Amino acid sequence: MAKLYVIGIGSGQREDMTLRAVECIKKCQVIVGYDFYIELIKDFIKDKVIIKTSMKSEVERCRLAISKVKEGYDTGVISSGDSGLYGMAGLLLELNTDIEYEIIPGVTSAFLAAASLGAPIMHDFCSISLSDLLTPWQIIEKRIKAAAEGDFVIALYNPKSSARVYNLNRALEIILRYRNPKTFVGIVKNARRYNEEKIITTLDSINLENIDMRTILIIGNSMTYVKDGYMITPRGYII
Amino acid sequence: MAKLYVIGIGSGQREDMTLRAVECIKKCQVIVGYDFYIELIKDFIKDKVIIKTSMKSEVERCRLAISKVKEGYDTGVISSGDSGLYGMAGLLLELNTDIEYEIIPGVTSAFLAAASLGAPIMHDFCSISLSDLLTPWQIIEKRIKAAAEGDFVIALYNPKSSARVYNLNRALEIILRYRNPKTFVGIVKNARRYNEEKIITTLDSINLENIDMRTILIIGNSMTYVKDGYMITPRGYII
Ligand SMILES: C[S@@+](CC[C@H](N)C(=O)[O-])C[C@H]1O[C@@H](n2cnc3c(N)ncnc32)[C@H](O)[C@@H]1O
Ligand SMILES: C[S@@+](CC[C@H](N)C(=O)[O-])C[C@H]1O[C@@H](n2cnc3c(N)ncnc32)[C@H](O)[C@@H]1O
Repeated sequence: MAKLYVIGIGSGQREDMTLRAVECIKKCQVIVGYDFYIELIKDFIKDKVIIKTSMKSEVERCRLAISKVKEGYDTGVISSGDSGLYGMAGLLLELNTDIEYEIIPGVTSAFLAAASLGAPIMHDFCSISLSDLLTPWQIIEKRIKAAAEGDFVIALYNPKSSARVYNLNRALEIILRYRNPKTFVGIVKNARRYNEEKIITTLDSINLENIDMRTILIIGNSMTYVKDGYMITPRGYII
Repeated sequence: MAKLYVIGIGSGQREDMTLRAVECIKKCQVIVGYDFYIELIKDFIKDKVIIKTSMKSEVERCRLAISKVKEGYDTGVISSGDSGLYGMAGLLLELNTDIEYEIIPGVTSAFLAAASLGAPIMHDFCSISLSDLLTPWQIIEKRIKAAAEGDFVIALYNPKSSARVYNLNRALEIILRYRNPKTFVGIVKNARRYNEEKIITTLDSINLENIDMRTILIIGNSMTYVKDGYMITPRGYII
């Protein structure tokens, strides 16, 4: 029987995919995903039926994938990073639990970025998406406040898009109420892709210009420091 | 020049490692890690010098790894899941930034467990370690409270060890102050290993007996539900 594979591809570079992700992509006859993610893996999906869809039609894309499985095709739905977190696994299961699934986890972008920065996420951390397309801003704000108060390392996903430019500003304002303005922040665009850009700065000196929807911010906790260009959050070992 | 590879191995099953992790393990002459993780990957490190150490000597283990690199050996330090989160990357960088590093991110256990449960971590989430070996309980408690108040999906790492049996109880008590007792909880032991065990239950019915240091708990947010055995946290799509 045909199966629906929900596949997290990490950065999209082959080296950051798990062996299972690569193997399952190979197995699929149909691959479904955002144009940009499809582009990232285009070299090894040449022989497949590709269903690219524009940015906002997640529901339509998932329905299509489900119908392809029902027609008998092994179908892979691709997410960047992990297949769950702000990805497609949940929506697919919400739509249908009758077909067979295999959910393949992947390295989420917070950890891709962290590896490029050094070791900023050594300790308790939160991931928060700043997209208020599906989540009321009030809830996002409540979570930002809780994460800031709790002195978590904070990964901000979806920090900014062309349609959403102010949320990051508002988020940083809230965080600054609870945190030292000199708290270290790592900003990584296209983590572990050929065109990666990264910078380590502090909460009060973030340049919003350079941040876009391919960027993630890692805000340190009160212990985070920088040494020889590495951003490090200690766990508390006595050394 | 020799390099220090800090390698996240996911579940430890080859299929959950990234291609880069596998490639770098192959490259190393020396492999350093907990006995248990070494055991997980024993099949493909047969020809290497293995430095296994007992559970609590992380600092010693890291110093050893650094000295091996200085002696000219490519050395790999293995962590389960991701190489950063509650892993070894930070400690190594704290000890030494003079040698060359490559930090290889991996699939953290929260996402390994999530993939087995369905899609519980679709939305904003926190990871909290319940080990108070290196972190004062007061700080852990503050974070648990913040995460519960913020309605995050919560992944509890290091929930229990033979020396630490009460922290999980205390953590659940705090969470229950802010959350509906019927909130869904996924509990996974040895996620994506041959001996995986999992269960979906609710906050007020967790059986603490079966939880140990190879287990992770995924506590849903207020929207999390269960459908046909899958644990799902919706992102808010209108379907
Ligand atoms: C819809 S979310 C998908 C998250 C994905 N499922 C994951 O686990 O990383 C998209 C957001 O993830 C972040 N992102 C994904 N890949 C990234 C990368 N390689 N570098 C930096 N940020 C990335 C960006 O913040 C982006 O706006
Ligand atoms: C010291 S932490 C290491 C975390 C690891 N670096 C990661 O990213 O998953 C050890 C804890 O991770 C969790 N863990 C690691 N591997 C696991 C697995 N395969 N299944 C369930 N829990 C796991 C357990 O809660 C365990 O007590």
